[in-house]
Amino acid sequence: MIIQLDPAISEEAKAKITDTLGQLKFKGTEVKTQIGDYLVCIGKTNIDIRQLGFLPGIIDIHKVSDDYKLVSRKWKVNSTKIDLGDGVVIGDGSFSIMAGPCSIEGEENVRATIKHLKENGVNIMRGGVFKPRSSPYSFRGMGIDGLKMWYNIAREEGIKIVTEVMQVSQIEEMYPYVDVFQVGARNTQNFNLLDELGKVDKAVMIKRGISGTIEELLYSAEYVFSGGNEKLILCERGIRTYEKASRNTLDLNAVPILKDKTHLPVVVDPSHGIGIRDYVDSMSLAAVMAGADGVIFEIHPLPEKAASDGQQTLDFQQSAALIRKMKKTYALREEFEMVV
Amino acid sequence: MIIQLDPAISEEAKAKITDTLGQLKFKGTEVKTQIGDYLVCIGKTNIDIRQLGFLPGIIDIHKVSDDYKLVSRKWKVNSTKIDLGDGVVIGDGSFSIMAGPCSIEGEENVRATIKHLKENGVNIMRGGVFKPRSSPYSFRGMGIDGLKMWYNIAREEGIKIVTEVMQVSQIEEMYPYVDVFQVGARNTQNFNLLDELGKVDKAVMIKRGISGTIEELLYSAEYVFSGGNEKLILCERGIRTYEKASRNTLDLNAVPILKDKTHLPVVVDPSHGIGIRDYVDSMSLAAVMAGADGVIFEIHPLPEKAASDGQQTLDFQQSAALIRKMKKTYALREEFEMVV
Amino acid sequence: MIIQLDPAISEEAKAKITDTLGQLKFKGTEVKTQIGDYLVCIGKTNIDIRQLGFLPGIIDIHKVSDDYKLVSRKWKVNSTKIDLGDGVVIGDGSFSIMAGPCSIEGEENVRATIKHLKENGVNIMRGGVFKPRSSPYSFRGMGIDGLKMWYNIAREEGIKIVTEVMQVSQIEEMYPYVDVFQVGARNTQNFNLLDELGKVDKAVMIKRGISGTIEELLYSAEYVFSGGNEKLILCERGIRTYEKASRNTLDLNAVPILKDKTHLPVVVDPSHGIGIRDYVDSMSLAAVMAGADGVIFEIHPLPEKAASDGQQTLDFQQSAALIRKMKKTYALREEFEMVV
Amino acid sequence: MIIQLDPAISEEAKAKITDTLGQLKFKGTEVKTQIGDYLVCIGKTNIDIRQLGFLPGIIDIHKVSDDYKLVSRKWKVNSTKIDLGDGVVIGDGSFSIMAGPCSIEGEENVRATIKHLKENGVNIMRGGVFKPRSSPYSFRGMGIDGLKMWYNIAREEGIKIVTEVMQVSQIEEMYPYVDVFQVGARNTQNFNLLDELGKVDKAVMIKRGISGTIEELLYSAEYVFSGGNEKLILCERGIRTYEKASRNTLDLNAVPILKDKTHLPVVVDPSHGIGIRDYVDSMSLAAVMAGADGVIFEIHPLPEKAASDGQQTLDFQQSAALIRKMKKTYALREEFEMVV
Repeated sequence: MIIQLDPAISEEAKAKITDTLGQLKFKGTEVKTQIGDYLVCIGKTNIDIRQLGFLPGIIDIHKVSDDYKLVSRKWKVNSTKIDLGDGVVIGDGSFSIMAGPCSIEGEENVRATIKHLKENGVNIMRGGVFKPRSSPYSFRGMGIDGLKMWYNIAREEGIKIVTEVMQVSQIEEMYPYVDVFQVGARNTQNFNLLDELGKVDKAVMIKRGISGTIEELLYSAEYVFSGGNEKLILCERGIRTYEKASRNTLDLNAVPILKDKTHLPVVVDPSHGIGIRDYVDSMSLAAVMAGADGVIFEIHPLPEKAASDGQQTLDFQQSAALIRKMKKTYALREEFEMVV
Repeated sequence: MIIQLDPAISEEAKAKITDTLGQLKFKGTEVKTQIGDYLVCIGKTNIDIRQLGFLPGIIDIHKVSDDYKLVSRKWKVNSTKIDLGDGVVIGDGSFSIMAGPCSIEGEENVRATIKHLKENGVNIMRGGVFKPRSSPYSFRGMGIDGLKMWYNIAREEGIKIVTEVMQVSQIEEMYPYVDVFQVGARNTQNFNLLDELGKVDKAVMIKRGISGTIEELLYSAEYVFSGGNEKLILCERGIRTYEKASRNTLDLNAVPILKDKTHLPVVVDPSHGIGIRDYVDSMSLAAVMAGADGVIFEIHPLPEKAASDGQQTLDFQQSAALIRKMKKTYALREEFEMVV
Repeated sequence: MIIQLDPAISEEAKAKITDTLGQLKFKGTEVKTQIGDYLVCIGKTNIDIRQLGFLPGIIDIHKVSDDYKLVSRKWKVNSTKIDLGDGVVIGDGSFSIMAGPCSIEGEENVRATIKHLKENGVNIMRGGVFKPRSSPYSFRGMGIDGLKMWYNIAREEGIKIVTEVMQVSQIEEMYPYVDVFQVGARNTQNFNLLDELGKVDKAVMIKRGISGTIEELLYSAEYVFSGGNEKLILCERGIRTYEKASRNTLDLNAVPILKDKTHLPVVVDPSHGIGIRDYVDSMSLAAVMAGADGVIFEIHPLPEKAASDGQQTLDFQQSAALIRKMKKTYALREEFEMVV
Repeated sequence: MIIQLDPAISEEAKAKITDTLGQLKFKGTEVKTQIGDYLVCIGKTNIDIRQLGFLPGIIDIHKVSDDYKLVSRKWKVNSTKIDLGDGVVIGDGSFSIMAGPCSIEGEENVRATIKHLKENGVNIMRGGVFKPRSSPYSFRGMGIDGLKMWYNIAREEGIKIVTEVMQVSQIEEMYPYVDVFQVGARNTQNFNLLDELGKVDKAVMIKRGISGTIEELLYSAEYVFSGGNEKLILCERGIRTYEKASRNTLDLNAVPILKDKTHLPVVVDPSHGIGIRDYVDSMSLAAVMAGADGVIFEIHPLPEKAASDGQQTLDFQQSAALIRKMKKTYALREEFEMVV
């Protein structure tokens, strides 16, 4: 059960609500976000909403049968739209394309990528500066200096930045230069990181765990939301299965399931999802038709020279063709939705 | 290596080829299909094709680095088109829609379904008469009498039949009434069944195993082809993973991968693939964009009363809407392909 | 619910029971095995056993909450013992060791293997004469003639034979030469084969499917049992997972779970389970401690020259050492069980 | 390639080695641990060790074909023994039993548990004070105060403590009260946490990821080792598969494989691994026979009242019986190893 509180509620009224909840054997956790003030109430018994609804300071009460609450569409029926500023939005009827290299490699590369993005009407750029690597001896990214360099060029050009944050201590130093904090697949259940991102007022994109369930992804989003941050995006990026013909098994089933269960926008990463350049195009278009709110994919001026993940990276010509096709496919999907 | 033989080759010339292969430490398996006469040659060493090419009776020689040979696109670059007669074809530029109930239930149901299919321009009907069931106490289908009843109505109406064959002994009795023999996910590696279907001159659709790899599916097709039957269709129907939010994990990645590796048509079954009615629509459209040659899905006049699989079955209204959208989506895909 | 019938029950009494069941909205399937006469009753409602118990011809009635019935330990609390004749038994307090090559290769190999088994007190030999192979071009075994050759030597020496049957049509020709019919991992859900093996009076060992669940294995056993054959053995042989450090993931968890859920003996195949020779020893001993009723493993006089699966096959010296250790480990397990 | 350096090496000599490595196109990472000073060298070409071996300051050079280096048994053939002080050691011929509740719950519970452990000769206690939970609304543990309370009692009684650290910022506050830092299954690839634990001089036990490969576990250990900490223990705790009859699939195959590939001790957690109380006993004994250096399991005075994981927790009577059996089983294993 979620109780929406009047932002101007008095401490006295709040105490009265908590007290009544206790008598009904419910435990309430107060959640203040950029947008609202909520009490998430967990209990085992059924409750008659009328026992609470008359109390002062309550705007609305929603029963939510899912175990995750704030991210559930059972509570918030309308899709969430996230505003990155300067007219760049994600979710709720917009279709977001995000592209860029696996790793930020240098100024020349950043400038070339941004030029390509602008020519193709894309205004969000992805790229890693802190790279999680299985082996401690692999390249771990350009770090905070790379991020600053990237930011300076991107701001000039009106491009938004999505990049991975790997640990709590990076949040503060990265904050001024980031538009969307990405939580990587190895950190989906790094609950301390999620807690801290709940305190930030910038958007957070959570990737599904390497073998994470859809439900776990929703719970991870609940962590950030209940920490105070509603600006959440979910990302399907392929799961680990026995099949070795593709790097991962991009699970497009997750798209309609997530769109049904949550009001948050859902983005698909076909580059990591299938992991082979030649198939990124097909899976991107499939993602659009499956109902995704956006696609995030890897590009590089010279994929075979990329510092990492070259085998799944498109060159600019392939990227331009894909962007054109995605836009047409999305237009057709919108047509379908209007009819229904 | 595949050697295409002259259909009029003499026994003497054939013996000469086999002899030469033996000297080169290759073993040749002769494969006669409806269309051609081949020697599939397996060996461990490299071979200089010129050592063979001059021999009489040889039309062509193809090196194939894949372990499966006859189904590989490395040998046969052009996509295969399967002709079911009366202008009904599968593969190579046509888009095939196949729909019908999980189990054939009775004459009335069959008539209603065929009426619906014809109204929507669909000419292939799916349905089970022999049903593989985990429990020996479940309904196992109407059997051969159900098939005959279905056939009589379908023939009248110009509708083609695709239905599952579960064992070798059923092939003969089913043969007159079937257009496409379906090999179910539990029988993908029933090699005796595959061997016998190699001797049949009707089309065979092989479903991917419940946790079968893409490579195993290609090998299973190689069994049928090397048994003498080139009329083969592959079907992605979802794999078993840890994720329990969907019945199976429909693996659309398999579509572009299979289309790249084999010349055979690839069909997708979203009904079993995701297993939940509300999501069949999205996954069907995604399958079209992923590059499928067709979609096979479950419909029923009253899904909630279906003898089996009702939870993943569309009613006729949903089916009609889906068919319309798939056609439009396929038209857009064709437009993309023409440009490229 | 399982109703045990008096073997001398009259047709009239039987009709009366069926009739009463119908009134209670239950459907009874009569199952006659080598040992008993049962009515397996499936219904959706609760039943008061007293409504049936007074009817003539009924010996006993057992409620079974599992969906599989005849193989459930909820009905038959005592473990099943299978008698192969000549004092060779499987299950219920005996520990069975079965060893032999992956494929039967020739008389010399068979004689050497049997000599080794007898020297080490083992009286069941495994070996394949019909081999399921992913590729149609691989060696498919010596066939029925190989089986006859093997049988002639084994009978002389008092050794029992366990070997795989791949299809219904092989049952009759194999029958005289086989002590235990093995159903392979690719055929666990070949329901026609299971149905037919229900009509045989020889033991059947069912391997768990390549990605079969424990419940599906029990259902497959239920097929054979409900077909009339109680002489059933279950075999854990590794499942397919994402982990590639071993050929399969031998799932020893299945041993205590199966021993808890069914009265049938449970055997473990570590050779296919882990698939690497050096680790077969450890996993065999682990299987004993996990509670297995037996272990089946692959041996060959010269593993590196074996026709198939050499990399997971022990030589005779390794085999002798393993057999000694398994016996000591089993003796310790028996000691533990006696205390409890 | 690993170069062992003389601890008294001069900066000049070190520069000379680095220089020579550069000429050979190798990159050396210096690793100083509690025990030694190493250069881990990564390169793509083959190298003739004689080009380096004559340089001053080098004690020894080992070629290591594995991609992980310092944890590989190819370099360090002898098993690692970890000394926790007061005669408590893990690995290399000792067998370690660690038991305790899932969550530390209070002083009374701690005292009762320690009493039970001491009566049964166990000197390492497990327990969680920081609990990773899927839902933000679940109990997250007693925190640092719980750890201090536990420590005070444990030190009095001579009991060592193993407990989970979830984030970098906890390391310092937990340090005085912990004997073994546990890295949980959700943090196996939290590379920042691993980096920081490399700087600590206390033992670290890394659990295999929820669907982590064996190789990834070794890489995670390489992170800590290359960070400077050799006191490492690996823990198999079950992987995520499609099988739902057990909570996880305890992968005992990992035990002989890890023991073969690394010199580090390997411990098994059957409580999380199978997740059902009745089967913990069998899987623990199986783990001993598979070659584990220890077993870690969950106990509670009243399992059904445990704050978390009660369904997989043993009571003290079950625990005492299991400890007795594990010791006898380990004694038998030692007997086997002596013979071989």
